[in-house]
Amino acid sequence: MPTYRAPTRDTRFVVNELLRLDSFGNLAGFEGADREMTDTVIDEAGRFISEVVAPLNQQGDQEGCTRAADGSVTTPAGFKAAYDQFRESGWGTLSAPEAFGGQGMPHIMGMLVEEFLASANQAFAMYPGLTSGAVASILTKGSAEQQELYLPKMISGEWLGTMNLTEPHCGTDLGMIRTRAMPQADGTYAITGTKIFISAGEHDLTENIIHLVLAKTPDAPESSKGISLFIVPKVLVNADGTLGARNAVSCGSLEHKMGIRANATCVMNYDGAIGTMVGEENKGLAAMFIMMNVARLGVGIQGLAQAEVAYQNGVAYAIERRQGRALTGPAEPQEKADPIIVHADVRRMLMDAKALTEGLRALCLWGALQADLSHKAATGEERAAADDLLGLLTPVIKGYGTDSGYKVATDMQQVWGGHGYIVENGMEQFVRDARIAMIYEGTNGIQAMDLCGRKLAANGGRAVQALFALVDGECEGVEGDLAGIADKLAKANGELKAATMWFMQNAMANPNNLGAGAYPYMTLMGTVAVGLMWLKMAKVAAAALVGGVEDRPFYEAKLTTARYFAERHLPDCGALRRKIEGGADSVMALPVEAFATAA
Amino acid sequence: MPTYRAPTRDTRFVVNELLRLDSFGNLAGFEGADREMTDTVIDEAGRFISEVVAPLNQQGDQEGCTRAADGSVTTPAGFKAAYDQFRESGWGTLSAPEAFGGQGMPHIMGMLVEEFLASANQAFAMYPGLTSGAVASILTKGSAEQQELYLPKMISGEWLGTMNLTEPHCGTDLGMIRTRAMPQADGTYAITGTKIFISAGEHDLTENIIHLVLAKTPDAPESSKGISLFIVPKVLVNADGTLGARNAVSCGSLEHKMGIRANATCVMNYDGAIGTMVGEENKGLAAMFIMMNVARLGVGIQGLAQAEVAYQNGVAYAIERRQGRALTGPAEPQEKADPIIVHADVRRMLMDAKALTEGLRALCLWGALQADLSHKAATGEERAAADDLLGLLTPVIKGYGTDSGYKVATDMQQVWGGHGYIVENGMEQFVRDARIAMIYEGTNGIQAMDLCGRKLAANGGRAVQALFALVDGECEGVEGDLAGIADKLAKANGELKAATMWFMQNAMANPNNLGAGAYPYMTLMGTVAVGLMWLKMAKVAAAALVGGVEDRPFYEAKLTTARYFAERHLPDCGALRRKIEGGADSVMALPVEAFATAA
Repeated sequence: MPTYRAPTRDTRFVVNELLRLDSFGNLAGFEGADREMTDTVIDEAGRFISEVVAPLNQQGDQEGCTRAADGSVTTPAGFKAAYDQFRESGWGTLSAPEAFGGQGMPHIMGMLVEEFLASANQAFAMYPGLTSGAVASILTKGSAEQQELYLPKMISGEWLGTMNLTEPHCGTDLGMIRTRAMPQADGTYAITGTKIFISAGEHDLTENIIHLVLAKTPDAPESSKGISLFIVPKVLVNADGTLGARNAVSCGSLEHKMGIRANATCVMNYDGAIGTMVGEENKGLAAMFIMMNVARLGVGIQGLAQAEVAYQNGVAYAIERRQGRALTGPAEPQEKADPIIVHADVRRMLMDAKALTEGLRALCLWGALQADLSHKAATGEERAAADDLLGLLTPVIKGYGTDSGYKVATDMQQVWGGHGYIVENGMEQFVRDARIAMIYEGTNGIQAMDLCGRKLAANGGRAVQALFALVDGECEGVEGDLAGIADKLAKANGELKAATMWFMQNAMANPNNLGAGAYPYMTLMGTVAVGLMWLKMAKVAAAALVGGVEDRPFYEAKLTTARYFAERHLPDCGALRRKIEGGADSVMALPVEAFATAA
Repeated sequence: MPTYRAPTRDTRFVVNELLRLDSFGNLAGFEGADREMTDTVIDEAGRFISEVVAPLNQQGDQEGCTRAADGSVTTPAGFKAAYDQFRESGWGTLSAPEAFGGQGMPHIMGMLVEEFLASANQAFAMYPGLTSGAVASILTKGSAEQQELYLPKMISGEWLGTMNLTEPHCGTDLGMIRTRAMPQADGTYAITGTKIFISAGEHDLTENIIHLVLAKTPDAPESSKGISLFIVPKVLVNADGTLGARNAVSCGSLEHKMGIRANATCVMNYDGAIGTMVGEENKGLAAMFIMMNVARLGVGIQGLAQAEVAYQNGVAYAIERRQGRALTGPAEPQEKADPIIVHADVRRMLMDAKALTEGLRALCLWGALQADLSHKAATGEERAAADDLLGLLTPVIKGYGTDSGYKVATDMQQVWGGHGYIVENGMEQFVRDARIAMIYEGTNGIQAMDLCGRKLAANGGRAVQALFALVDGECEGVEGDLAGIADKLAKANGELKAATMWFMQNAMANPNNLGAGAYPYMTLMGTVAVGLMWLKMAKVAAAALVGGVEDRPFYEAKLTTARYFAERHLPDCGALRRKIEGGADSVMALPVEAFATAA
């Protein structure tokens, strides 16, 4: 059976030493975030999640959820009890606003718990995870009444939330939704329609579930300009907060899925269910994007999370399993064979996993810091700069992060050889679970288009120019052992600049030049962004070693891994640029008929 | 439900126009292989497999195999009837030697049927598929008596065969096997031990199963130099060929696997089972490698096969599913949305799939032709040249071919968005099934080491030099539209040469420089080899178009796809070279403890 232990040492490194959270004490919510507090949260949340939530992962996958004839859904054995403990522990409320019962801490704290939870049990993590997006929407766009009625219980975890976007005929293209919202005399709406792929749409963890539902009012324009957002509780909530009648929303069936089987993915039937509108009519897409941006970062972290847990189990096996001899001669001649970690090709996979996992952790938590800075930094300029970087890198964290999660999960399964293919050993579950993160909350192709079609051009390219400058600044004047890393990163940044320039010069003439290059561009920017994190981490580690830190092997490993990333990942940037510069011609030239397999 | 139709048009192109099988009429077995014959086989085998075998794929995955208390195993519904039809059709005997009841045709014919079969139903294909390897061993190393007793019925498919190598504690490192073979007075051996991961180890398709088993005789040296190979039939065979008593071999349990669930993967218990030795004592590894080399090509073809079937279903969905609008303006304004095949990023995935699938088909069938030429070509020089190329490229076809199969299956699932994650739609099965091919018959990491540690150096590097020359020769003097493709291929070949040179200069000093670079080197050679096939195909297509062929769109698509591969895949070669030249330092530098996730 696979195991999981929260990577608390590395998390502390990122929070305390790389991002230096305690240096932001002047910002609201950061005052109490000193090292003692952050260390305690990291260690205790890590311990709880490793001990209580992780052991349910494999059994949950095998058991799955069950729907009864009345539409009720039962989660796997142990989920309800673990959820109750999780809720009572308060680990889910760290970064939620104090006004509604949260602890008001920096986003980083909530994010790192999300990582631990998704490593331990992605299907479990999705129950509270989707609630964050719903909360963010109500917080930004909901009325005072809606906020008071729903937020305290959603933040405490007494109720959970969902996002209802997709319908059978439309996912990405939400302008096509058919779910209708008929205005009622009392100001509410009667919602009717079918939503699919609704994660945590129905379950037994909480007595109420707050659905956020996209629907169209009767005279709404076609297209995405005619979408409104509604709160539709499973059980109606009286004005005093007590529960009323059951609403006309139910789970019609559960999907059979490749993975995340312990999460109830529901077809939801709305049959004149009562809902209230969030924000303005026909402005639902904007409200939805608030949910989506929160959710996209969360999904990026799932990529990291699956990489981390797969890595831990890959390493354990590589140390334990003995096959063959080191190429340089027997490492343990007294044994019949060496542990497979002596083999360079096994190391290659472990180093990829380590470099990607630690690099993505730094990037995700750095992103969470930008989220706070975008609201709380002292000057408007600083706030805008943080907002720019977060907006630019959110699709990259989601897309490149989940691609990397799947790659690492696949590689760590590979380390296990044939035993990795056997269900009981758990490695194949990591691959199946990691796979969904590349698809939901906007496929990674959609992330690439968001990046290239929207984020690059916004404000005259201000955000991407800021990223270029940030990377160049980090590379400038680096000498000594780290110079090689900085040189390679500067070169990779040059490829990113050249690719960006190529888009600027060629996307007007043919927008497909942008579409055809978007995916390699996202990968290119992800590689540079993680490279930037590695250079930053290497600097911190080098300084710590000079300063005579105790835990030398930890910091030495950071230096080696930074070098590995520079030597083994940054070279891809040149190839990615060349692919982009190939343009759309050969991508788009074939007539549709040419794709059919001819007899 | 996913569908499959054998890609007969493309297969005919490779066999008739690219490889020009009919031009080898002077070779034994090729006399009758004119276009009429090959076209008939391709079309009829394709039709049979598409209609009879493919429809059992999804149901077989869901049903799996069942083991009864007595150790007997039942395959999924329909498998036995389909297998009987397959056997009677003779599609499994095309390339088997006539001396034992086969049809004696070129290997290409058997290989292309293997592809169709593995696309239609990989789990089903493995039942007859593993028999080929067993047959090859007996054919090369077995005694006349063994050949007469077993080969006719194995070739006809009346009996099926297996390969028993792996034990719980050893897979790659076969020197460690513990299964014992005690010599008996009558010249037979009593085999005792446990083998795991035995594909098709027990089933209800045939009345007998012929196990080829690696075991150690009492005084065998430790290490792989003390392994012998044995034939151990499930039911003993009398000297007259009739069946005798049940042998002491049984299936102890079935594995639960990520995929290929309709194939019975067995733990096999040998409890003093009677066997006869194949070839010489302690020379079992050599006999085993005959099986393995046949099996590795077959596994490479599984990569191609899963790519093909996933591609077909990805294309069908991309044409049918409507979301959003083309970046260049609505393609079908009368509809609410355009089919997603208008989107450049969807095209990117489809073009990758098409380029890899058709490129690998050409490479696999070209490899099968080398197999025949290595035995049958007119001169010793030609035979050696073919043998060199086949030996060099077998691990590449297996490793790069199955990596590509998994990539394409994953991408085609991605085209389906959320619907690709739903079991009923079948796309996720292709990913799960494709995954095993990267692991079995030697993990892809082992293929990379076979390539770099063994094949590169053999005969002073003769084989790789021949490949360099082949590619350069193909690129030389290319003018006109194809010059761009040839230039890029020549450059990629230059990267391959440089990487090879780097190994020559650095592997002696530190063998880990070879180990650390082996995997990217395999990918690099695979990319060049498929690039070579695309240049060859482009030349054939260009000539056909000049010649005024009827089916113009097919040939024009070849030209476009060749260009796509050159623009989108060949640029990776430079990055792969740089990774190799990074050497082993950062790969191997970490102490083992540094991989542990610290608290």
